[in-house]
Amino acid sequence: MKPSIPKGTRDFSAEEMLKRDFIFESIKQVFRIYGYEPIETPAMENLTTLLGKYGEEGDKLLFRILNSGNFLSAIKDERLMSPDQTRISSLICEKGLRYDLTVPFARYVVQHRDEIVFPFKRYQIQPVWRADRPQKGRYREFFQCDVDVIGSDSLLNEYELIKIIDDVFQRLKISSVIKINNRKLLSGIAEFIGQPDRITDITVAIDKLDKIGIKAVNDELNIKGISREAIRKLQPVILLTGSTDMKLSELEKTLEGSEPGKEGINELRTLFTLLGKGKVTCDVELDLTLARGLDYYTGAIIEVKSKDVNIGSICGGGRYDNLTGFFGLEGVSGVGISFGADRIYDVLTQLNLFDEISSSGTKVLILNFGEKETVYSLKILDQLRKMMISSELYPDPVKLKKQLSYADARKIPFIIIAGEDEIKTNELILKVMSSGEQKRMSVNDLLEFIESELIRKI
Amino acid sequence: MKPSIPKGTRDFSAEEMLKRDFIFESIKQVFRIYGYEPIETPAMENLTTLLGKYGEEGDKLLFRILNSGNFLSAIKDERLMSPDQTRISSLICEKGLRYDLTVPFARYVVQHRDEIVFPFKRYQIQPVWRADRPQKGRYREFFQCDVDVIGSDSLLNEYELIKIIDDVFQRLKISSVIKINNRKLLSGIAEFIGQPDRITDITVAIDKLDKIGIKAVNDELNIKGISREAIRKLQPVILLTGSTDMKLSELEKTLEGSEPGKEGINELRTLFTLLGKGKVTCDVELDLTLARGLDYYTGAIIEVKSKDVNIGSICGGGRYDNLTGFFGLEGVSGVGISFGADRIYDVLTQLNLFDEISSSGTKVLILNFGEKETVYSLKILDQLRKMMISSELYPDPVKLKKQLSYADARKIPFIIIAGEDEIKTNELILKVMSSGEQKRMSVNDLLEFIESELIRKI
Repeated sequence: MKPSIPKGTRDFSAEEMLKRDFIFESIKQVFRIYGYEPIETPAMENLTTLLGKYGEEGDKLLFRILNSGNFLSAIKDERLMSPDQTRISSLICEKGLRYDLTVPFARYVVQHRDEIVFPFKRYQIQPVWRADRPQKGRYREFFQCDVDVIGSDSLLNEYELIKIIDDVFQRLKISSVIKINNRKLLSGIAEFIGQPDRITDITVAIDKLDKIGIKAVNDELNIKGISREAIRKLQPVILLTGSTDMKLSELEKTLEGSEPGKEGINELRTLFTLLGKGKVTCDVELDLTLARGLDYYTGAIIEVKSKDVNIGSICGGGRYDNLTGFFGLEGVSGVGISFGADRIYDVLTQLNLFDEISSSGTKVLILNFGEKETVYSLKILDQLRKMMISSELYPDPVKLKKQLSYADARKIPFIIIAGEDEIKTNELILKVMSSGEQKRMSVNDLLEFIESELIRKI
Repeated sequence: MKPSIPKGTRDFSAEEMLKRDFIFESIKQVFRIYGYEPIETPAMENLTTLLGKYGEEGDKLLFRILNSGNFLSAIKDERLMSPDQTRISSLICEKGLRYDLTVPFARYVVQHRDEIVFPFKRYQIQPVWRADRPQKGRYREFFQCDVDVIGSDSLLNEYELIKIIDDVFQRLKISSVIKINNRKLLSGIAEFIGQPDRITDITVAIDKLDKIGIKAVNDELNIKGISREAIRKLQPVILLTGSTDMKLSELEKTLEGSEPGKEGINELRTLFTLLGKGKVTCDVELDLTLARGLDYYTGAIIEVKSKDVNIGSICGGGRYDNLTGFFGLEGVSGVGISFGADRIYDVLTQLNLFDEISSSGTKVLILNFGEKETVYSLKILDQLRKMMISSELYPDPVKLKKQLSYADARKIPFIIIAGEDEIKTNELILKVMSSGEQKRMSVNDLLEFIESELIRKI
């Protein structure tokens, strides 16, 4: 029986690691250039930190860790007689695996508030775990790349995060569209039509306008129980067209009476003005249908989609005014985004954009002819490695055919043959795998040749 | 109430991350130059993969993950009436957090045997979890850096791993001593004295020779129940002195009749001969008292200690002939070592060797004078970032004192002041924080100056 791993989890081979590293390194480099610093938090958090932050559904998706030692002793016998699943799990588990990086970050900020310099600009790239039903493209262990600034209300932060998105996807050569909305504007609209609790239903229906037309949208709103009067008032919002400026002016008139509506419009206007002046190469558009599920967003909402691959959001985030309030630190506003490394991986794969990544694997393999030749080979190896050239001596003196097929499978571009004859004249034979060409040369010539070949390829 | 994290776990601040990255990157670079490739495995493994691999004590230290969904349904009512802790935990938990990287690696090799090219040279740097009692320097979540080659019997692999150790600690500037022993030799000794099961007791006693003297060592062996005859036979081994060569020759005579003993001596001789020819800068010594707890070692045993800091082993490993046998793939020999990142961190800290790591944080802060000046500042920022210089605009137009103290706390070396006056003449003022010096200059001059300053510091 072959061993296996838990469903929804993955092993990463060397080739996958290389590609993933390319994504992580590109993202990290941009984060750093924008002045963000890395932190890491433990995989396990206390359940008191995690519970109640992701809604009822989220609580169910937490992986809980069984208390070590005598875990059953915490449960009284009568509890075991009439077992209540939820009660018992909270008695035998104190810890859980982190579900995202945002809540651990809020916990970190509060716990370390005395050491932190505000505004605190941090990034964090770590796996998270969710007991979701595994399916294509959805895993139980996956990586998030979060970047947040906390302790500043300035919309310059939103602007910078959008610049970061732009820079990251430019580096990765993914053409993308950045969609922006604002929770305050959505609250304004919901307030204006007298349905403050129905933001989600309203945005979901509006989102279908292009596909099903205005009549069907209104029918859907009606079926969902939005009043006729509310639907009537919503019409100018649904039918909004034109440039972002025109839309915002129109909305300004419509939502005149709504304080949050006006604030939302002002924030969006400031942000789009900044974006107009900075050079952003991605498409950036106002999208009133953008709501994002998470309840903690209070201002800007951001979501990014690939233009060429239909895979859902590849990056998203927004402003939250009181996330640290959960942990007793009130009134600290933050804004952040999260890149979905797994989806970005899929986009790059589908677009064949990984082709250009040069392999970082072994460059030179010295064939093994046996004990006598080994010392000579080890000397060459030392010199290659001193020049930071990844190289290997095949460890066993097996048939050359086997050694060459190893080189082939590992895509090693250069082979060195140093047998008795070559050693006598202090030389070696270099075989270039791509052309099959073989040259006899001195060790010094080899070093020069390899170095120039590798530089040429960078 | 301040939030906290589970005991034995840690948050890593930006400064700590920088130092840890320096360690990880140094190690990774050496691994790569030696032709090893990265893999990663999931944090969670099936408990069937983990249980029974680390001894009874190890099984107790596994963190188990509660099955999601209706976990109690797996337990019949009568089990709950007379609860057996171990039985119940195996019924309600199918997964556990990985305890080390070696067993997941063996599982990986067997699971992916059809895709893997042998000899398979992999490295893996990931956290592991153990429900150990937390204490100074011992954590429940810590990082291992493993490098293994599997599918080759050649002692060249042992030689290369020792070269890797040598290169890593040379890069980290830690002077260290590499101790080597061989399980076969230990088996030979135990066999020779007629106490094949007492290897551990024997090595522990011999280890005290320098401290307590030969008589006390023999007394201890006696107390532990080693027979008089066995102790008598052990004397030439305990009293072994001289060079490695001399020790090996002496042992050869003593253990003449033992097949494993002879094999162990031959392997050690081959390895030390290779090491004598390759240039190893660390001290490398034969240490007959080295046993290492793990039962799966079958050949070479390796352990590394810092010469300057007394902190236990900072790297260790050995050869295992049948680790994949656990998962149904017999007869594949491997050898590997594991670097202890946390202890290496402590050694570097104690020796003040982190001083030399230049900060990778923000290099330039542009002060924020308000909306009017922002667009000018953003242009400078774009140009700095295009040159890959980490830079920031302070997000809020607060008092300059506050902005400067932020620069100070974050150790940002250059400040840019671009107020109304400077903007008029298309200039700016650069303040060098280390000297307090201020210069008025054009944007182009700034870019040139910063670049040359930063290059000078590399």
